[in-house]
Amino acid sequence: MCAKEKVCLVTIRPERTVTQQDLRHATRLGPLRPAAGFRAALLPADGPRITGGFWRARRAVNSAACIPQGPELLENAGNLHNLRLITGEAEGEYRGDLPFLDSDVYKWLEAAAWQAAEPEGLPAEVARRMDEIIALVGRAQQVDGYLNSWFQIVKGGRRYEDLRWGHELYCAGHLIQAGVALHRATGRTDLLGIARRFADHLGAVFGPGNPVDGVDGHPEIETALVELYRETGDVAYLDLAGYFIDRRGHGLLNPPARRGQAPGPEYCQDHVPLREAPTVTGHAVRQLYLLAGAADYAAETDDPELLAALERMWSAMTATKTHLTGGLGAHHAEEDFGDPYELPNERAYCETCAAVASIHWSWRMALLTGRARYSDLIERTLFNALIPGVSLDGKRWLYVNPLQVRDGYARHVVGDQGARRTRWFRCACCPPNVMRLLASLPHYVASTDADGLQLHQYADGTYGGRVGGGVDGNLNGAGAGHRVAVRVVTDYPWSGRIAVTVDETEPDAVWTLSLRVPGWCERFALRIEGETVAAKPDEDGWLRLRRAWRPGEAAELDLELEPRLTVADPRVDAVRGCVAIERGPLVYCVEGVDHPGGGLDDLLFDLDAELSEYEDPDLLGGITVITASGRRRPAPPPTTWPYRRATETMINRPTEEPLTLTAVPYYTWANREDGAMRVWLPII
Amino acid sequence: MCAKEKVCLVTIRPERTVTQQDLRHATRLGPLRPAAGFRAALLPADGPRITGGFWRARRAVNSAACIPQGPELLENAGNLHNLRLITGEAEGEYRGDLPFLDSDVYKWLEAAAWQAAEPEGLPAEVARRMDEIIALVGRAQQVDGYLNSWFQIVKGGRRYEDLRWGHELYCAGHLIQAGVALHRATGRTDLLGIARRFADHLGAVFGPGNPVDGVDGHPEIETALVELYRETGDVAYLDLAGYFIDRRGHGLLNPPARRGQAPGPEYCQDHVPLREAPTVTGHAVRQLYLLAGAADYAAETDDPELLAALERMWSAMTATKTHLTGGLGAHHAEEDFGDPYELPNERAYCETCAAVASIHWSWRMALLTGRARYSDLIERTLFNALIPGVSLDGKRWLYVNPLQVRDGYARHVVGDQGARRTRWFRCACCPPNVMRLLASLPHYVASTDADGLQLHQYADGTYGGRVGGGVDGNLNGAGAGHRVAVRVVTDYPWSGRIAVTVDETEPDAVWTLSLRVPGWCERFALRIEGETVAAKPDEDGWLRLRRAWRPGEAAELDLELEPRLTVADPRVDAVRGCVAIERGPLVYCVEGVDHPGGGLDDLLFDLDAELSEYEDPDLLGGITVITASGRRRPAPPPTTWPYRRATETMINRPTEEPLTLTAVPYYTWANREDGAMRVWLPII
Repeated sequence: MCAKEKVCLVTIRPERTVTQQDLRHATRLGPLRPAAGFRAALLPADGPRITGGFWRARRAVNSAACIPQGPELLENAGNLHNLRLITGEAEGEYRGDLPFLDSDVYKWLEAAAWQAAEPEGLPAEVARRMDEIIALVGRAQQVDGYLNSWFQIVKGGRRYEDLRWGHELYCAGHLIQAGVALHRATGRTDLLGIARRFADHLGAVFGPGNPVDGVDGHPEIETALVELYRETGDVAYLDLAGYFIDRRGHGLLNPPARRGQAPGPEYCQDHVPLREAPTVTGHAVRQLYLLAGAADYAAETDDPELLAALERMWSAMTATKTHLTGGLGAHHAEEDFGDPYELPNERAYCETCAAVASIHWSWRMALLTGRARYSDLIERTLFNALIPGVSLDGKRWLYVNPLQVRDGYARHVVGDQGARRTRWFRCACCPPNVMRLLASLPHYVASTDADGLQLHQYADGTYGGRVGGGVDGNLNGAGAGHRVAVRVVTDYPWSGRIAVTVDETEPDAVWTLSLRVPGWCERFALRIEGETVAAKPDEDGWLRLRRAWRPGEAAELDLELEPRLTVADPRVDAVRGCVAIERGPLVYCVEGVDHPGGGLDDLLFDLDAELSEYEDPDLLGGITVITASGRRRPAPPPTTWPYRRATETMINRPTEEPLTLTAVPYYTWANREDGAMRVWLPII
Repeated sequence: MCAKEKVCLVTIRPERTVTQQDLRHATRLGPLRPAAGFRAALLPADGPRITGGFWRARRAVNSAACIPQGPELLENAGNLHNLRLITGEAEGEYRGDLPFLDSDVYKWLEAAAWQAAEPEGLPAEVARRMDEIIALVGRAQQVDGYLNSWFQIVKGGRRYEDLRWGHELYCAGHLIQAGVALHRATGRTDLLGIARRFADHLGAVFGPGNPVDGVDGHPEIETALVELYRETGDVAYLDLAGYFIDRRGHGLLNPPARRGQAPGPEYCQDHVPLREAPTVTGHAVRQLYLLAGAADYAAETDDPELLAALERMWSAMTATKTHLTGGLGAHHAEEDFGDPYELPNERAYCETCAAVASIHWSWRMALLTGRARYSDLIERTLFNALIPGVSLDGKRWLYVNPLQVRDGYARHVVGDQGARRTRWFRCACCPPNVMRLLASLPHYVASTDADGLQLHQYADGTYGGRVGGGVDGNLNGAGAGHRVAVRVVTDYPWSGRIAVTVDETEPDAVWTLSLRVPGWCERFALRIEGETVAAKPDEDGWLRLRRAWRPGEAAELDLELEPRLTVADPRVDAVRGCVAIERGPLVYCVEGVDHPGGGLDDLLFDLDAELSEYEDPDLLGGITVITASGRRRPAPPPTTWPYRRATETMINRPTEEPLTLTAVPYYTWANREDGAMRVWLPII
């Protein structure tokens, strides 16, 4: 305990839970609330609710299991202890030996905040713990607004001396996001006040004319400051975000080398100004948080140069650096994106946090540009890169999400990077990140603009917003246009049928219901009020249904979902001679547990085989299983050298034993046992 | 400078160079000198000399360019400065921020020591610098024998508190190996004296009844202590080596986690006692140094359990964890071996030091067992994993040796792990390791036993030793048997013709000349005194030529060297649908520089194509070039997603442009430009 810190304690606030008074002041908007000058093409829906189907089930686990376990896990891992070291309420050593542990507390608070705004709210005990933690954070904050347990306890209060590795602004950013979320979701102001004091402090320390010219090694503050600007209207926060975005890439982080490894400036995107960067590079999560913040900034400042850079980098990422699952990050070393088309299977990094960050970025791009391609990637990422990171019961996690685990080697890599689910991590960034994303998921489903309402994702629920009355397709200005709302009923992704019923509109108002036809979909049918309608998506990827919608009228979209085989660009060396199975938005995999008697390393897929499917309501929470015929190579004779002279019979299968391959959705893997798994199936 | 250290300085010795007096006391034996109780099946040749051909040229670069540049590089990198901080001859900060920098000094001294024993000796200036450095090392040693600049300068003299990461015994091991080498090569005793004082100190600190029960995180001390026992006859060193080997695997290194990463006990082979380990695991260089030391210990103690473990682990390594090049280590992260058959191309680690360590281990196994398979791997490793690590001019180095570099991405990975040659490294373990291996290379070529002389490698030169007269095939006992020597003339690996002429033998003595028929060789011819002889290798891999050899008699082996195509076990996922080109012991690769107009990422190899070859004496120091017909895929249309639905025309080539593929030996890559490279060539 540093005595010097004690004099800086602020007054302890009374603890409190969310009240009805709070909720009346909530905006019911989610992450990315448009500000007065918002220039995006689309606005997120207000007050969206997911009420059934696939995502209700996943979110029920999040609210009933994931979020409630947070306080205990943060207690056990030492995060709360470290904050109490500041206030003098605990004694001993800083626990965890990592500089960013405060951020896990803030991400959990953000998750709890979004959850508090749901109709069922938070369980009373969880709400009480949230109050306690907010009060603790308030007590730990210094009088000038600064707060960071690593620097206050371990580093003797020497602030901003290690921007490269210290994560001070990263932690501040997550605190700010939590404060914004709690205020936006419930109207409650205490955490927002703490966040503003920290942000005001940063505004007095960083930037032109201030003592420190620097940026944080780990982006996050940028998006947080733009959101704080949106929530408060204080343009100083927006300007500070712009400063952090545009000072990056000028060598301010020129790092002192670390022992045994010397990440270059690419690691934290300090090698080139973002506006000039051709593609995504370096540490994937850092890159993606930065890009989300830059998209926020571009949306608020109408900056075409920045937007062009963002579109360029997004296209380069999806074309060359994205795994089939939507997972991002090819290298364990430096958690790096890797080179174009370098997309390994067993060594895929695909950090769960990168999936969260990718969704954040793509959602901002979707709103900025109005193009459906961004929500295509969000869909893929939600189903195949985000939720694989949490077990079906919500109690065990994956930090990295490989696309292959060899027979008998699930336990090979230990620590946070293991290929098996873990109760918690030493570096526990991923679990609360999943919690906050799932808690705020309804906000990523729909948007509105002057022209109408857009459904980006197909989740059973209700979505609405204001349409019409705007200028240039922009809905700014209070009370412009009129409110519309739709109800979505679907068993997606198991069924491709999506029924959209208009719940609320103005009499005789003509507006457009826009439905996204996913990039994977080759055939679909559309019915309006039971009548089949010929339609095709426009160049932005939307099926535009424009008419004078009346309440109760329904559009029914039927996306053909039959299982399909997927191959990769031949430059993706890691999957040469392999196919993957997909069905709708779901990537499938095979698991060792379904293939007893020999494991997966010797399996071959028959390219000519038909894929079959069946529903199994009892398996893995209820899934559609896909089967196909394959073969198993005979156990090879013992050898001391795995290379041999090529012969004409190089690709022969004289004695291969036929067997049935059973594929399950990738998001369900490693829920029955730790074991072998493959997404890509060899055909030779 | 730590004042406390100053009082510990030992008397400064006069500087000196190697004298004729010294050389008269040299044993002229190389690494791994048999001791009195030596139980190996074979003994290394004495006084071997490489006098022509491929290896003379590579070694000339080592002696003329590599070794002479060492002192300047060690000066620039701070290694010598750090030693001078101990003696008070320099002021300022410890340079390099790594705990093992002393070891680079010792490895360079070992290289210079072996080179000093060559007929041409060391250039006078290099010899003078060696004397200076030895004197500096002597002055820096503490009176009780301890020496380590990191712990004396940076860690305030707190010894043995960080055995997990400190590399104290690792550095001590390299000092001991240098002392042994200088004494064995030249008879000079000063550095050996320094080494013994350190070893005696270790013997008083570690082991049963001593203060510290521990092992070093990085093995190396084990092999050094056995060699010191061999050089001095003091069995205490052997016992201490055995203690370190057998105390490993009992959790003594149970490591405190490092920031952001937590290598498990496998990282430094502390997860299981070596005698029980099924395969090689963890950090490749650590594992291999440990196994070399264990083989030394097994050879001196006649330990069948340990030998069985070594054979088991060696077989598992070569069968499942060895790249085609002989390179070892599949992961950048933790420099780890990876799982069986996990052998990536662009992310192959294949540290140059791992090649050195692999040769050390395999040579000990070759002598222990008398089996030729170990020298098969040494040959592959020498040509394709060791010398790729140094440029043809001896001035630039590779730390990692990937099997693929994508178009335009040679510069992607920065720091020590780059895919382009570098003048030196921050962690400069590899360059002096290559220097000491090449300087001692003649000692890995031949061996003798009671039965005769064995040629393990085909290098133009002279090799001899004592044969006959031993007991149980063991040559122990001074003066047993009689001396034989052979002269090898060959242009190997460009030509497969190897002429072996008997230079020295006893009249009427019958003995066996054993020639290794490499595992890659399917056809060979043998002539003795011009007469073709039918022969085939025995089960140990040797062609045994037993007769009463007379001086001047010659055997001529002709290994068929035509280029061949190689495929991998289908479990090596990284090279599915690919072939590699080999010729004799050389692995070939294609480089971007030979394929203008489009790079390598879109090349396809025609499986039906004939391979052609031609000699180019002016290219890359004189090589045999191999050509074949291939195709280039047309530039694909721009896409935002690299995956697509599989169709019947999945593997089609309607518009592929034919072109000639040009392959050069892998060891010559990146000598013309930094650029794209591939060992494995796609056929689909």
